[in-house]
Amino acid sequence: MSVLVVGSLALDTIETPFGSASETVGGSATYISLAASYFVSPIRIVGVVGGDFPRSAMQLLEERGVDMEGLQVVEDGRTFRWSGRYHYDLNQRDTLSTDLNVFQAFDPTVPETYRRSRIVCLGNIDPVLQLRVLDQMESPRIVVCDTMNYWIEGKNAELRETLKHITVLILNDSEARLLSREPNLIKAAKVIRGMGPSVLIIKKGEHGALLLTESMVFSAPAYPMENIFDPTGAGDAFAGGFLGWLARTEDMSEENLKRAVIYGSALASFCVEKFGIEGLRDLTYLHIQDRFREFRELSRFDED
Amino acid sequence: MSVLVVGSLALDTIETPFGSASETVGGSATYISLAASYFVSPIRIVGVVGGDFPRSAMQLLEERGVDMEGLQVVEDGRTFRWSGRYHYDLNQRDTLSTDLNVFQAFDPTVPETYRRSRIVCLGNIDPVLQLRVLDQMESPRIVVCDTMNYWIEGKNAELRETLKHITVLILNDSEARLLSREPNLIKAAKVIRGMGPSVLIIKKGEHGALLLTESMVFSAPAYPMENIFDPTGAGDAFAGGFLGWLARTEDMSEENLKRAVIYGSALASFCVEKFGIEGLRDLTYLHIQDRFREFRELSRFDED
Repeated sequence: MSVLVVGSLALDTIETPFGSASETVGGSATYISLAASYFVSPIRIVGVVGGDFPRSAMQLLEERGVDMEGLQVVEDGRTFRWSGRYHYDLNQRDTLSTDLNVFQAFDPTVPETYRRSRIVCLGNIDPVLQLRVLDQMESPRIVVCDTMNYWIEGKNAELRETLKHITVLILNDSEARLLSREPNLIKAAKVIRGMGPSVLIIKKGEHGALLLTESMVFSAPAYPMENIFDPTGAGDAFAGGFLGWLARTEDMSEENLKRAVIYGSALASFCVEKFGIEGLRDLTYLHIQDRFREFRELSRFDED
Repeated sequence: MSVLVVGSLALDTIETPFGSASETVGGSATYISLAASYFVSPIRIVGVVGGDFPRSAMQLLEERGVDMEGLQVVEDGRTFRWSGRYHYDLNQRDTLSTDLNVFQAFDPTVPETYRRSRIVCLGNIDPVLQLRVLDQMESPRIVVCDTMNYWIEGKNAELRETLKHITVLILNDSEARLLSREPNLIKAAKVIRGMGPSVLIIKKGEHGALLLTESMVFSAPAYPMENIFDPTGAGDAFAGGFLGWLARTEDMSEENLKRAVIYGSALASFCVEKFGIEGLRDLTYLHIQDRFREFRELSRFDED
């Protein structure tokens, strides 16, 4: 299945208790595409960068089978920049600065050749832009959407409109509570599924993830990690692994959605082991399958 | 396997967003014994109550196969009382009052007939009293211990001494972080296992539980509950279900420890569905096995 990814391409400045990186390549579209690229190709990307976006990053994406026709390059503009600092426990971060730059005036245009993509992944950007992308598509089979507190609070009505057209919404637990105004996650999931998405994934960081449909709750474990180097991009790597598996298998059954959540969790675990996108550069499909089996061992128990 | 339970028997006054109860029967020994009673008998209890402890509660315990020889009844004393209020999200509670009463001068005496019990469960009481119980036992096979922030902070040295003699320590995630001074739970578990317990269980409330041994991490899901009526006793019900399964099967293999964690989680889920001990009154073993299978379905996924 063909995959279209829309999202940010960024230069991130990151501080964690274990190190820091200045203007390293990041952005939701970058992480999603890299993670998905281990499962399927081509991945088509819609986004915008300035003339300062490194050639080497473009090359990396191309080598990983990412189709860059839909990437707008504003030669005299500056790439979107984000800067953040993680706390000691890595569960919290402070955004130090956000410079939209070329993203400020971004109007996503989906190339003609992309419009029949079967899977669309809307990375965490303005829900108005997410909807504008969907409007250009010809009845995609699956629309996966990520969002965050910033849009839930700042563009709630617009987000609610976008959600009507979403198949799979991916949120973290605090975002699910904020969007639904319901502290109980199982109730929150019902409220959110009532807004449009038939499938909801609630990411819980070190506690794993929940997959919820009308008829099923699936609890995915978290990979037990002693050393998380940099949490940046984990959520996007999750989305990329999840949709990559669905695109590869073309199987939307509940059993296969569960596997997709595990593949998403696996890619997220690789992502946080290294700084920035480093953890997603040199994987192999066999390596990913080994981690899938580790997840299985982690949560498997038998009847007496 | 014979089981000895030491802990509190209490009269609890509880407020939750969904109701309240005044001077209802509670206490760690009560919850642990009731939960374990569905797996094995007799359960032997060591504790203390005042003359005001309801006859009906004594009868209930006896009917569930609990041996009360070790229960001290101070006829002219008042039973331990606890009062607490749960917040709207049920993950936090305020202790409104604690009246030790007969517990103040409690000196646990293990009856001669109890001293060769194979499994000892030290409910959440002063670690000095926990150790005093162990001193009276004749080489139990398994010692399960529960504790809390109050003892970790207030009697750290005493707790550390007790931990040297523990097989299985059961904590929640914030307690594990506090005891180990380590935010990462996998690292925290290593630190705590170095203090004595070869098996550690970290309860994470709505996120399930982790079981950690030297060679294994097992992630148990949480039962998806829309309506938690009263969280009181959930941790004790977990401990009771866990050790009840071990006592019934006499199998300490890692595979069976996993099952025991699921049975513990099952009993905790029954406990919080009703107020006080009501959720643990009228279960059947078949009912419990059905819930065990629901846990299995919740976390099961297959390879492609």
